[in-house]
Amino acid sequence: MAREIGIGTISLGWMGTLHTRAYRRLLDHYPECELRPRLVVAADTVEDRARDAADRLGYEGWTTDWREVIEHPEVEAVSIAAPNYLHKEVAVAAARAGKHIWLEKPCGRYPSETYDIGEAVEEAGVVSMIGLMYRHVPVVEYARELIAAGELGEITHYRGYFLADYAADPNGALTWRYKLDGAGLGVLGDIMPHSVDMAQNLLGPIESVSAQRETFIRQRPEVPEGMGTGHFVVEGGDMGEVENEDYVGGLLRFESGVRGTIENSRTCVGPHVRMSFEVNGTRGALSWDFQRLNELQLYRTDGTGDRGYRKVHAAPGMGDFDRFQPGAGISMGYDDLKVAEAERFLSSIADGRQRPASIRDIVSTMRVVDAMDRSCNTGRWEKV
Amino acid sequence: MAREIGIGTISLGWMGTLHTRAYRRLLDHYPECELRPRLVVAADTVEDRARDAADRLGYEGWTTDWREVIEHPEVEAVSIAAPNYLHKEVAVAAARAGKHIWLEKPCGRYPSETYDIGEAVEEAGVVSMIGLMYRHVPVVEYARELIAAGELGEITHYRGYFLADYAADPNGALTWRYKLDGAGLGVLGDIMPHSVDMAQNLLGPIESVSAQRETFIRQRPEVPEGMGTGHFVVEGGDMGEVENEDYVGGLLRFESGVRGTIENSRTCVGPHVRMSFEVNGTRGALSWDFQRLNELQLYRTDGTGDRGYRKVHAAPGMGDFDRFQPGAGISMGYDDLKVAEAERFLSSIADGRQRPASIRDIVSTMRVVDAMDRSCNTGRWEKV
Amino acid sequence: MAREIGIGTISLGWMGTLHTRAYRRLLDHYPECELRPRLVVAADTVEDRARDAADRLGYEGWTTDWREVIEHPEVEAVSIAAPNYLHKEVAVAAARAGKHIWLEKPCGRYPSETYDIGEAVEEAGVVSMIGLMYRHVPVVEYARELIAAGELGEITHYRGYFLADYAADPNGALTWRYKLDGAGLGVLGDIMPHSVDMAQNLLGPIESVSAQRETFIRQRPEVPEGMGTGHFVVEGGDMGEVENEDYVGGLLRFESGVRGTIENSRTCVGPHVRMSFEVNGTRGALSWDFQRLNELQLYRTDGTGDRGYRKVHAAPGMGDFDRFQPGAGISMGYDDLKVAEAERFLSSIADGRQRPASIRDIVSTMRVVDAMDRSCNTGRWEKV
Amino acid sequence: MAREIGIGTISLGWMGTLHTRAYRRLLDHYPECELRPRLVVAADTVEDRARDAADRLGYEGWTTDWREVIEHPEVEAVSIAAPNYLHKEVAVAAARAGKHIWLEKPCGRYPSETYDIGEAVEEAGVVSMIGLMYRHVPVVEYARELIAAGELGEITHYRGYFLADYAADPNGALTWRYKLDGAGLGVLGDIMPHSVDMAQNLLGPIESVSAQRETFIRQRPEVPEGMGTGHFVVEGGDMGEVENEDYVGGLLRFESGVRGTIENSRTCVGPHVRMSFEVNGTRGALSWDFQRLNELQLYRTDGTGDRGYRKVHAAPGMGDFDRFQPGAGISMGYDDLKVAEAERFLSSIADGRQRPASIRDIVSTMRVVDAMDRSCNTGRWEKV
Ligand SMILES: NC(=O)C1=CN([C@@H]2O[C@H](COP(=O)(O)OP(=O)(O)OC[C@H]3O[C@@H](n4cnc5c(N)ncnc54)[C@H](O)[C@@H]3O)[C@@H](O)[C@H]2O)C=CC1
Ligand SMILES: NC(=O)C1=CN([C@@H]2O[C@H](COP(=O)(O)OP(=O)(O)OC[C@H]3O[C@@H](n4cnc5c(N)ncnc54)[C@H](O)[C@@H]3O)[C@@H](O)[C@H]2O)C=CC1
Ligand SMILES: NC(=O)C1=CN([C@@H]2O[C@H](COP(=O)(O)OP(=O)(O)OC[C@H]3O[C@@H](n4cnc5c(N)ncnc54)[C@H](O)[C@@H]3O)[C@@H](O)[C@H]2O)C=CC1
Ligand SMILES: NC(=O)C1=CN([C@@H]2O[C@H](COP(=O)(O)OP(=O)(O)OC[C@H]3O[C@@H](n4cnc5c(N)ncnc54)[C@H](O)[C@@H]3O)[C@@H](O)[C@H]2O)C=CC1
Repeated sequence: MAREIGIGTISLGWMGTLHTRAYRRLLDHYPECELRPRLVVAADTVEDRARDAADRLGYEGWTTDWREVIEHPEVEAVSIAAPNYLHKEVAVAAARAGKHIWLEKPCGRYPSETYDIGEAVEEAGVVSMIGLMYRHVPVVEYARELIAAGELGEITHYRGYFLADYAADPNGALTWRYKLDGAGLGVLGDIMPHSVDMAQNLLGPIESVSAQRETFIRQRPEVPEGMGTGHFVVEGGDMGEVENEDYVGGLLRFESGVRGTIENSRTCVGPHVRMSFEVNGTRGALSWDFQRLNELQLYRTDGTGDRGYRKVHAAPGMGDFDRFQPGAGISMGYDDLKVAEAERFLSSIADGRQRPASIRDIVSTMRVVDAMDRSCNTGRWEKV
Repeated sequence: MAREIGIGTISLGWMGTLHTRAYRRLLDHYPECELRPRLVVAADTVEDRARDAADRLGYEGWTTDWREVIEHPEVEAVSIAAPNYLHKEVAVAAARAGKHIWLEKPCGRYPSETYDIGEAVEEAGVVSMIGLMYRHVPVVEYARELIAAGELGEITHYRGYFLADYAADPNGALTWRYKLDGAGLGVLGDIMPHSVDMAQNLLGPIESVSAQRETFIRQRPEVPEGMGTGHFVVEGGDMGEVENEDYVGGLLRFESGVRGTIENSRTCVGPHVRMSFEVNGTRGALSWDFQRLNELQLYRTDGTGDRGYRKVHAAPGMGDFDRFQPGAGISMGYDDLKVAEAERFLSSIADGRQRPASIRDIVSTMRVVDAMDRSCNTGRWEKV
Repeated sequence: MAREIGIGTISLGWMGTLHTRAYRRLLDHYPECELRPRLVVAADTVEDRARDAADRLGYEGWTTDWREVIEHPEVEAVSIAAPNYLHKEVAVAAARAGKHIWLEKPCGRYPSETYDIGEAVEEAGVVSMIGLMYRHVPVVEYARELIAAGELGEITHYRGYFLADYAADPNGALTWRYKLDGAGLGVLGDIMPHSVDMAQNLLGPIESVSAQRETFIRQRPEVPEGMGTGHFVVEGGDMGEVENEDYVGGLLRFESGVRGTIENSRTCVGPHVRMSFEVNGTRGALSWDFQRLNELQLYRTDGTGDRGYRKVHAAPGMGDFDRFQPGAGISMGYDDLKVAEAERFLSSIADGRQRPASIRDIVSTMRVVDAMDRSCNTGRWEKV
Repeated sequence: MAREIGIGTISLGWMGTLHTRAYRRLLDHYPECELRPRLVVAADTVEDRARDAADRLGYEGWTTDWREVIEHPEVEAVSIAAPNYLHKEVAVAAARAGKHIWLEKPCGRYPSETYDIGEAVEEAGVVSMIGLMYRHVPVVEYARELIAAGELGEITHYRGYFLADYAADPNGALTWRYKLDGAGLGVLGDIMPHSVDMAQNLLGPIESVSAQRETFIRQRPEVPEGMGTGHFVVEGGDMGEVENEDYVGGLLRFESGVRGTIENSRTCVGPHVRMSFEVNGTRGALSWDFQRLNELQLYRTDGTGDRGYRKVHAAPGMGDFDRFQPGAGISMGYDDLKVAEAERFLSSIADGRQRPASIRDIVSTMRVVDAMDRSCNTGRWEKV
């Protein structure tokens, strides 16, 4: 019989809300999970948001002070979905308080903050789960297995992308994401961790990088007092400086010898959220685009002799697909990925076996990001 | 402040479970909904399934006798997700007991059973919601609006498909779906209602049809005692007769003058669940495939003079997309559609304004199905 | 050593020009062909067109009287690319004069005219080649072979389309194509022969049909004196009646038991020239669209267990691809198909083995068209 | 009235043959061209190939000594389609002899050889045409016009690819293409010129680059005496060293501020000939893949407010499309591009206005290639 585990959540923006829903849907999809989440308390500095959201989401209590969440004796596990500038302070405090943490990427404003969190987590011996949920896409898990099993032969080329338009509008508000104090790095912090984690998830460690960066939109309208979460447009108003990069392009060398390119942009008109990758090996190839979550393009030599990419739909047998849908062709949605992530978090706590993506995965990722950052400055290849 | 409404559910197979989850997720996506579902009681003849499922899904009680659900005084609204042969009996009983009903398609084994349900509902004056949830796909709602607004000009051609492989395996078990007693019609009942409802949803009433049918797989393995729900494969075992059709192809004439074709198959190897449509008008065109839930192919003449289909992603502003995701490119999933359907059900009860798809929509649909059935027999065009 | 064969061509519009170029390019792609075309004489009623075109295209002589072509003693083979109303008269005359004929579809205005041509050709014992050149597309030939070899299992479903926009503009001129005197049938003559021939080419004889037709654009601007060939737009001007159908939709039953739908339109906004087909069998499926001439979508079960359509590019080994391009991914063009057709024509003459598509193929096709025509009138299924 | 121009061709492999066919088809598609090619003489060292090919292709004479072509008094223009190691010697000799040259890329084994050719051509004042024929694809020309007209706003990102599988088979023979003596550079010479020329054609000069290279297949079977042209597979046999690179990945900075990535591989399993590009600007985007020669993916904001890539088919009005086909949806083929290139060559000679791609274009391209080559060695950004 499942035992209850007390959950506290810090910040109730997009991600904090999604963590919460994931906890609530967990047993629908993973009925055998040994831990049954109990929503104890949630915090957000905006009082109305904290009260209403917590009420609607089903928390027993709410607060505007995140420390109360961590200190709450009935909270065993903490979801941290605050803006980047709070990641380190909150996560370190939570770990030191002996709480397991489900922490959103990028885990700090800069790699150094991630490393600090990593140390605190290791010292405390708590479980960590990082919001790198693209790993949990069933066709991505299938892709990883195919590669690991050598089904594509030896891998030769890799292309990774995160081409997004969330900041493409020059009137997109100058939120914390564009500020050194708030976010630290730009796309290197906001989306590159997804791209790098995916690359390493599929192909193992990256060894060195060469990179360049650019800020295409250098000024944006300041955010009026009390404005909402997420991305929004402000017409008119004062302009302020964008302090971090819109774009990073890079060349990759993996330890295995694979060569690759990687490109991230938040101001890319055309694709909406093209988080995608392409892998070529000596006997096959595959590619995936987040915008077609449930499809894998797969090229494999087989008995028929036919050559060409095959459009493979997510199906039972790939990752956790059958937890969500009964047959190929029926779409999982984005939010389902967070349910799978919640499961990995709670199951890791339950049996003590740390499932990916853990703090080690993001630390490893941020070492690559760090090397990219250096390379942007030096104009040279940099070792990870 | 939202008031509670007592919910009872009949049958806890795939759809019954999905209705339940939809009730539970409702307020996450529609916080302003005036009714807050309270899960009172659920019924399934398989006792273990009833007990376990109801417990896990959060019902206060469970039973193996569906009549107890209907008679329960605290149940105001009933979800009916039983096999087709129970639709009429259960739905009529529920309506007569004054309960609002959320009823799965096809609403009976034959059109005549649908009509009977229709009469009972009208007489009782209760609200009805039918599981024709493809209507609630955001890009489909957008398509409907574009057509209605004349953005594609006058519509000329229509092609509708439901090409599925759920019964393509000759070892797929001979469940109730293949029996006259259990399902009544074959694809005409199981999937054609979706195709016809979509056609009429987009283009208005169909006036006459010509159709043919075929059963490609004439024998299937009998289902061993106590086997599961849904579709499953049985190796070896006795063979029994398939009693209804695998395939129907038809020609359509709409009252508006539009000409069309329609094709449904449950044994079609290749596509998995290609529920799709294509519309051509004098100034534009569009097409959609359920397997790419969040994409619309849209051809419109515009100021640029460019010609070609545009791949439009679901985005805020289309249907209820923004209830589920914040931006284009982030995928909604199949289950989300049932949340939208639950909302339409409860909001219709709350304010007395019947939202589609109501019993009238399915009655209208089954009149077309009826004409197809006749045409298959007569080899002539039949009026609806 | 190849011997020369004298060629005469009747009409120098789009098709007549293309036949000519095909003759001239023949040996570049089929150097071993035993006949080397010598362009003797060409005819067109528009004198300037005849003179200039023949000169530019390399004919030794020209005339405005097609009879001179047929009577020319050095002409052994005649290309007939005149408007439909001349097909019968010209083709019968040519056959009777003992000339081999390369004749454009539909071979007359009505099936009866095709039958007459068929009889004349059989009596004269000459070789015939009909302009059904979609057969010669390499991936289509590959598709046909796969089906014939049983690689897709038993075929169950077929969908055939020819959805074109060449007549979608209401100001498209009222050329001979829209007149009973000029063209006879509308889409039933102009494009349905391609659709039907393809269906029978892939799956064998069609046994019965049910069909409907419509004329969406009932009036068009009259053609001013002396206007060009092909399709063109006329602004303003007098309007005249369109005398034949824009659209035909049909249901098919093949002798083999396959069921299908077919749809042809010349006024379909959206696709440009969607001559396409989709085939489903019990073990695989495939589909093709003329607009992506060099690609086949192929679904086959194989050792990998992966399910999904594979995008297969035309490659050496498929049909005559390697006559034109050295490797997969390099595109053949439309005109190349006519070179392949010319080869089949001349090789049939050279060795007396009649290659498809012969007059028998088009006669067989027109019997199906005939049944469609009858069904449009009777509203019943009609046997071929 | 068109005057004749004497043509000589050096080498009759794939490209030499294609040049010849292009000359012969020229007037069919460009009847107003002022020069009418007369095929005077062709050279190939393999005597049989020279004799047979020249005969079949219609040359008046043939030789095994390319100097005779250049020295022939009736030859005014020379097509040079010899292996790379002959480009410089032949092209310089031809220019000095006052002959106009149509020269295949890469114009030498190394950039320095290209520069030498460039100087000789400038000094001699002859016309040059380089085989960078991707420029002549109608949808590419349309893309270039859209960008130039500012229709996509300010360009921000560029991705260029040439991912080919022609050398992916480890048993692919060790032809001249893999040798320093024969080819010089590997993909930097063989395909990168296409990628770089396209980038600069669309977006103007590249200013600096960072690049890496790799040779994935380090040994290949030696070519037996007297083997054919092009690419072919040898089973068994002695192995020899591959002397140049299979793969180059690079980062780009354009003078305009655009940032980009570029990747070329000849051993990439999956795509066949993915010569493609993607362009993003502040108001639109587009992408193209050679494997779908006649399609452009185009994203443009327009009056409708719809967002998404539109699949635009090549159509009259784009580049020289209407020289080849009458309407959208009808495919041009690869060989047609060489006809367009022949026209640009002869028209440049006729009126003295040098059309692209001239020797200047390839010199500019090879300066970028040179910088890539240096960057591969230094591990630093290199200025062009
Ligand atoms: N895994 C993924 O793909 C994604 C991860 N994220 C990450 O999630 C984190 C949150 O992002 P969003 O939810 O999109 O941001 P958001 O802007 O929607 O929400 C941030 C919330 O934090 C609250 N907050 C601010 N200061 C606080 C404090 N001192 N104590 C408690 N709450 C405070 C704000 O009031 C707001 O409600 C970020 O680190 C971001 O990188 C965001 C989106 C996607
Ligand atoms: N809207 C849609 O797209 C879909 C609609 N459906 C419809 O939903 C209905 C149910 O289908 P599924 O859930 O797929 O079937 P299922 O086979 O998964 O479940 C049927 C359930 O009914 C129970 N049952 C049988 N007799 C009963 C009785 N006398 N009283 C109470 N429960 C009883 C069974 O034990 C089983 O749990 C069908 O009418 C079907 O047409 C099904 C799938 C999709
Ligand atoms: N295989 C295929 O896919 C296609 C077949 N066709 C067929 O080819 C035939 C011709 O079509 P297009 O070339 O498109 O037509 P077009 O309108 O371009 O050319 C017709 C030509 O016939 C000439 N002509 C008219 N009366 C004549 C006479 N008494 N004697 C000699 N010439 C005469 C006209 O002056 C004109 O040059 C038609 O039967 C059509 O169905 C056309 C297009 C494609
Ligand atoms: N524009 C494009 O996209 C392409 C350009 N090319 C370029 O064209 C050139 C030729 O390539 P392919 O035709 O593919 O090669 P290939 O290997 O098919 O033909 C080369 C020909 O040159 C002949 N040859 C060798 N030495 C000779 C000599 N001393 N004198 C006269 N002929 C001699 C050979 O016998 C052979 O017939 C290369 O520089 C290549 O880079 C090749 C393919 C595509």
